[in-house]
Amino acid sequence: MAGRTVRPERGSATRELILATAERLYAEHGVHAVSNRQISEAAGQGNSAAVGYHFGTKADLVRAIARKHADQMEELRVWMVADAAGSTDVRDWVACLVRPFIRHLAAQGSPTWYARFRAQVMADPALYEITIEEALPSPSLRLLVDGLNRCVSHLPPAVREARWAMARHVIVHMCVERERALADGTPTLQPSWDDLAAGLIDAIVGLWLAPVTHRS
Amino acid sequence: MAGRTVRPERGSATRELILATAERLYAEHGVHAVSNRQISEAAGQGNSAAVGYHFGTKADLVRAIARKHADQMEELRVWMVADAAGSTDVRDWVACLVRPFIRHLAAQGSPTWYARFRAQVMADPALYEITIEEALPSPSLRLLVDGLNRCVSHLPPAVREARWAMARHVIVHMCVERERALADGTPTLQPSWDDLAAGLIDAIVGLWLAPVTHRS
Repeated sequence: MAGRTVRPERGSATRELILATAERLYAEHGVHAVSNRQISEAAGQGNSAAVGYHFGTKADLVRAIARKHADQMEELRVWMVADAAGSTDVRDWVACLVRPFIRHLAAQGSPTWYARFRAQVMADPALYEITIEEALPSPSLRLLVDGLNRCVSHLPPAVREARWAMARHVIVHMCVERERALADGTPTLQPSWDDLAAGLIDAIVGLWLAPVTHRS
Repeated sequence: MAGRTVRPERGSATRELILATAERLYAEHGVHAVSNRQISEAAGQGNSAAVGYHFGTKADLVRAIARKHADQMEELRVWMVADAAGSTDVRDWVACLVRPFIRHLAAQGSPTWYARFRAQVMADPALYEITIEEALPSPSLRLLVDGLNRCVSHLPPAVREARWAMARHVIVHMCVERERALADGTPTLQPSWDDLAAGLIDAIVGLWLAPVTHRS
């Protein structure tokens, strides 16, 4: 019995170690530049096939990292979205988009790797698709997307789609910039993660509310 | 004499080939993942030290690529900035920021690599510094930065600095998305580069004009 309770725990600790190592290496070098073998070795696994044994393919590993963060952010988002329910103020929904991601980063102490991991994944359409699959079952994310879309239903669908992409890029890459500065010990643009969040919310509300001057 | 006129041309063609090859490899794999030797080989140079011979270090090569594009964009920007001179309308200056970059991409046909090259370089503070050094002697860029800053002089300096960074990220990464879709033959968000530019100008004007609701 003792053996049977210890083994899953050891397996779980190994899985966590592999996830953290993969996230760091992907964040630093890009997902395609890092092999499962390199991750196994950097995670101190004697067996260089450890990643394959615990997770399967690289896509499965990316999916597991994305799932772990999505679950943690869901807990932060669900309360904000409940507060915003029924709101027709873009700002309330933009806050639900920005704050859970940034609070999740802040909660991890320093250094973090998740913003850079996400930027690397967003740069690869196939991997990005996988992380969307992991995130979309989230009930709070669905409510947030619907809530924000209702506030900007006057925008042509193509403009809406483009502005979702712009908001995503600006959030992730501003967080990447701060994450990297904190990791390198160089000056950050904002004194705190909360200040970054506040600045992003102001700017992204402006981006969403901007009039459309041109039709293609 | 014939030898002396031919040689510089051959050298110049080789330099151009190396620049184009390096830009493509950097765009696809990241600047740090690609060695000078790999670039020499991919450019079909028998001598694997060709990059070192023609350019020097990796930093010198990045500088040369950045310089080439900066010179070409300068030609497009100088006229727009002259038209905007004295304007106090943020939109005029945002157009000067967005259009030369996008017209430069559009002018190169498909596929382009420069947006992805720029995104890779922006992700590395030391390399980004190099490209800024190459771009800043540009008189039109200096006029543009001053012109836009005058329009938003009511913003606290830290907010202004953050919004410059946001504008940069949103322009580059929306162009990366389109560049990659065109290269892969997958659907693009906008029908043309001009449509992307128009959508970006609207959104970035909104971003700059957004009220500041929070002071740290």
